[in-house]
Amino acid sequence: MLALIAGTGALPEELVARLSEPPLVCAMEGFAPERLAVDIPFPIEHLGSLVADLKARGVSEICLAGAVGRPAVDPARIDAATLPLVPVIQQALTSGDDGALRAVMGIFENAGLTVRAAHEIAPDLLMPAGCPTKAQPEPAELADARRGAEIVAAMSAADIGQACVVHRGQALAVESVFGTNWMLGSLGQRPDAGGGVLFKAPKPDQDRRADLPTIGPDTVTAAVVAGLSGLVIAAGGVIVLERDRVIAECDRLGLFLFVAGPDA
Amino acid sequence: MLALIAGTGALPEELVARLSEPPLVCAMEGFAPERLAVDIPFPIEHLGSLVADLKARGVSEICLAGAVGRPAVDPARIDAATLPLVPVIQQALTSGDDGALRAVMGIFENAGLTVRAAHEIAPDLLMPAGCPTKAQPEPAELADARRGAEIVAAMSAADIGQACVVHRGQALAVESVFGTNWMLGSLGQRPDAGGGVLFKAPKPDQDRRADLPTIGPDTVTAAVVAGLSGLVIAAGGVIVLERDRVIAECDRLGLFLFVAGPDA
Repeated sequence: MLALIAGTGALPEELVARLSEPPLVCAMEGFAPERLAVDIPFPIEHLGSLVADLKARGVSEICLAGAVGRPAVDPARIDAATLPLVPVIQQALTSGDDGALRAVMGIFENAGLTVRAAHEIAPDLLMPAGCPTKAQPEPAELADARRGAEIVAAMSAADIGQACVVHRGQALAVESVFGTNWMLGSLGQRPDAGGGVLFKAPKPDQDRRADLPTIGPDTVTAAVVAGLSGLVIAAGGVIVLERDRVIAECDRLGLFLFVAGPDA
Repeated sequence: MLALIAGTGALPEELVARLSEPPLVCAMEGFAPERLAVDIPFPIEHLGSLVADLKARGVSEICLAGAVGRPAVDPARIDAATLPLVPVIQQALTSGDDGALRAVMGIFENAGLTVRAAHEIAPDLLMPAGCPTKAQPEPAELADARRGAEIVAAMSAADIGQACVVHRGQALAVESVFGTNWMLGSLGQRPDAGGGVLFKAPKPDQDRRADLPTIGPDTVTAAVVAGLSGLVIAAGGVIVLERDRVIAECDRLGLFLFVAGPDA
């Protein structure tokens, strides 16, 4: 049986809708999914008991999906089963995103549970390479996307953002800790005449079992406000939430969405 | 004798104020300095004649200082002395910043003129390592500056900006083609509670004879609006315009300015 450790955002709900059997939905206090019934709520201080409970219920696989912030830990609330995990939890709370996820996944794996990625159990969260929108990228826009891939790769070396905006070969904006939509919002006051492409891709070395970058209808709206002409995502590396609405919004607003294969 | 190829901004004027003998001031059409009398104005299409003129006047050294955009070239206006330089000029107009400057400097060097950097003929455009402001950086802010150095080095690999804003180890903003002050302005609507450090340094491999990054009083104002606590620049690599005003503004507004040596 599969247990879903669900966080906030649209991903957990979209994942469940794609599964033939409903998973056991677990959610950490403070970061529960908005539109999904939670079977097992748990505070971070009871993580050890959650793992034991899942094992006792016959769960063999878990999937982390959705956004989870870093909770405050109340030492007085830590239960006996969680006590041995405190060093790992502390390490997770002070690591970068990828380090934190690896630490938490290690806790489940050490208990004999298999960690599976959302896109592994629901492959159609990812889109095939190609351009499903009416608008199609021009050669110059594909060149900007390749430049974007180069920039994201360089940023990954320093473990910062997974997205950037490129126009005529030059970086107009680079994603920071505030995320893609904030970056696009900052271009609302851009000093030039508009244009450009959003490029988004995972870090080359990130653990793909959790935290693949995502786009959704909000991203399309933010890209329009930023004056961009289209979105380019790396095939196999970016989850598209509400795919039909994303494509419909692109078509309504005249943007292209291009899913770039490795040779694009 | 020294000829100054002066562009826009405060640098040409500050440079001239530091020289014991006034240089011959040349300026390209459209990019003349605001507050400096120009001896020889020239259009890009007459660059070859300018070089010949400088040689005839006994000029042995030139210095490029100030900002120059990429001019449009009118083929009908190119004079005979400039015709042989057209391929180099065209290459410069389609290269990255550093490539463009190298190409233009090559034209002067091939004519037997020595190209000297602004900070080479006026070394006190650069500040010594240390912290001349009343406010001093905390250890956490020095750690953020080291993280900033790591980020700027990664960005350099992709030939993008020379500045970033870091707070508690995380990149809040990364400089794009719109420059440092625009980056700082984008943080006027930051979604968090403020704080952070501006870090600025040259690209490790850039040609330091022109185009060293600069800060000035405007940078201090923009940093305050962005909610930052201080500025960190790489010693020997960043020109400080109106140094006394920069320090006075930092002191008035409670920011620190730290000039980081290689071991900071």
